Amino acid sequence: MKDSPTIGVFDSGFGGLTVLRALMQQIPQGRFAFLGDTARLPYGSKSRRTIARYAAESAQFLVREQGAEYLVIACNTASALALDAIQDAVAVPVLGVIEPGAAAARHASESSDVLVIATDATVQSHAYATACRAQGLRALEKACPLLVPLVEEGWTDHPVTAEVIRVYLGELLSQASAEQMEPDALVLGCTHYPLLRPLLEKAVPAGMRIIDSAGAVADALVKELGASEMQSGTQFDAPELRCFATDSIEKFERLGSRFLGRPVGHVELVDLGG
Amino acid sequence: MKDSPTIGVFDSGFGGLTVLRALMQQIPQGRFAFLGDTARLPYGSKSRRTIARYAAESAQFLVREQGAEYLVIACNTASALALDAIQDAVAVPVLGVIEPGAAAARHASESSDVLVIATDATVQSHAYATACRAQGLRALEKACPLLVPLVEEGWTDHPVTAEVIRVYLGELLSQASAEQMEPDALVLGCTHYPLLRPLLEKAVPAGMRIIDSAGAVADALVKELGASEMQSGTQFDAPELRCFATDSIEKFERLGSRFLGRPVGHVELVDLGG
Repeated sequence: MKDSPTIGVFDSGFGGLTVLRALMQQIPQGRFAFLGDTARLPYGSKSRRTIARYAAESAQFLVREQGAEYLVIACNTASALALDAIQDAVAVPVLGVIEPGAAAARHASESSDVLVIATDATVQSHAYATACRAQGLRALEKACPLLVPLVEEGWTDHPVTAEVIRVYLGELLSQASAEQMEPDALVLGCTHYPLLRPLLEKAVPAGMRIIDSAGAVADALVKELGASEMQSGTQFDAPELRCFATDSIEKFERLGSRFLGRPVGHVELVDLGG
Repeated sequence: MKDSPTIGVFDSGFGGLTVLRALMQQIPQGRFAFLGDTARLPYGSKSRRTIARYAAESAQFLVREQGAEYLVIACNTASALALDAIQDAVAVPVLGVIEPGAAAARHASESSDVLVIATDATVQSHAYATACRAQGLRALEKACPLLVPLVEEGWTDHPVTAEVIRVYLGELLSQASAEQMEPDALVLGCTHYPLLRPLLEKAVPAGMRIIDSAGAVADALVKELGASEMQSGTQFDAPELRCFATDSIEKFERLGSRFLGRPVGHVELVDLGG
């Protein structure tokens, strides 16, 4: 009997643990290795060239040293700017969060007009607009740079955060209206944002659906595994999770459980150089 | 006649431009080279070892490649965690922001109790508490991780920022009260915070003085130059400013002028590796 496949999950920080959470829910018997490249975060303020190099090194660690047979890029910035570079760097299937997010938006939207909130770098890449256009959707993107720090401060249910969301969504809806759009879905284009879902649900107009790329990429991976592993009758072994970070182990261990929804356990420090 | 001395100013990002601004005001005929290590920011979430290596490499660039004869570490995190490493790495006088900030607090405080707001890493290092203790002051420090993102979002006069400051200062004053302290000075332990000075002035209790390390380090450098250059009768040439960054030139050029109070001009990209 073949072992459970090892699924490598990579993020620049630990926000991608929301994606790992969705993966573990949908593939409870998977074997997971998560790497947060915390020494070099945030990728969002760096150039495409730099991000591609960092992401490729991280991907190679998961594949070569941890034996990952599938790779999920649980980082919108890296998915937006470095998916090609990662696919070139490793020989295993690589899934980003953006294409599955756009596909989920297409299923959810009736008007074919969608809104996307994300970090500055993801918005500047227009990766969601491009992926949405390929799905026949019109997407309006907005950078919301305060939301990640608010989540990391733990203010996920704070009046200040509700007000920041009100300001950002107000600006986005005004712009959509000015462009004659009738959006009926909001894509969360950052792995930190699922923790703000309760506040976002209260802030969006009635009837607007919220799309979480984390769930979407988990669905996509189940399909991928279904074809190559599950349908071949392989039994999965007991679940396993190993977490690695390039720095800031303490912060990872302290905040990670909020994102993962369960303790992350011991986090191992790895040195990728640079 | 000897040339104007070249003063190297270093920060992990461009917040240190508030320090450069104070330096240029006090030494208008100086010759300045500013380096923002933007490819590897924020230092605040990294380990002491990593920060020391990055800061030493940045200091060496300013001294060896730009001919800096004096070095100002316009970064609280690097001053707190890597001043020794930088002094070991270069052979020129090195000034950090923390000792001058603590000295300025001693001049301002009558009660000898002071408050310090800073980033997470600076607070965790307790560098301000240590420097204040050496000045005979008791210091209570608080991490305010939302303030840098709010400044970078440009919300320096926004109700949300006023509310965040109210929450942070309220918590800090409550803790000071619980510890039987009577603080009469607030030290801005982060180079981004001078841009929040108007909101902070409104938020602090009546009579509390606000201490900006930027002005304090400029005073300290004038003293240093006074001893070795100015008093030797040297005439200074025309002012000169060259700005360098390791990444994110566009963001530096776009936001830098807010911090410097004048256009930063063309920013040159440099590669320090890593």
